Amino acid sequence: MDSVIILGLAAGALTTGSTIPQILKILKTKSAGDISTLFFLFMGCGMLLWLIYGILRSDIIIILWNPLSLSLCLIILGLKRVYP
Amino acid sequence: MDSVIILGLAAGALTTGSTIPQILKILKTKSAGDISTLFFLFMGCGMLLWLIYGILRSDIIIILWNPLSLSLCLIILGLKRVYP
Repeated sequence: MDSVIILGLAAGALTTGSTIPQILKILKTKSAGDISTLFFLFMGCGMLLWLIYGILRSDIIIILWNPLSLSLCLIILGLKRVYP
Repeated sequence: MDSVIILGLAAGALTTGSTIPQILKILKTKSAGDISTLFFLFMGCGMLLWLIYGILRSDIIIILWNPLSLSLCLIILGLKRVYP
């Protein structure tokens, strides 16, 4: 596998996976008061545009990670509603 | 300007700019307890790899936004130390 692809996979794994500790922290503490809703709203919209950008650029790495990141982003927005 | 470039600029502006409301919220409330340090640590490392990926792919959009995002990420990590 091409080293650039491996690098992109690692980059995406980190930025996408980074949301998981935040989700786990909210579930553990049952508190999301300090988290900005706007942060995750803008982030989610940005990820949607990155997905379209990746499709137009035929960049499989960008296409692969952004739907996952967007889903995790939506989970946090949901948790923010539950634990305002 | 090419529409794909404009899309990439918009995507990056959203994902990079999304950190600003979070920074402002921490400064306003002087509280970052609900924010996961691991979230921003992994995110920052991922952004560093995305920057290298963008350089290797010669993708100016990825090269442009990731240093900014990384800087904002580091600001939040700093604020997390000040307001644990």
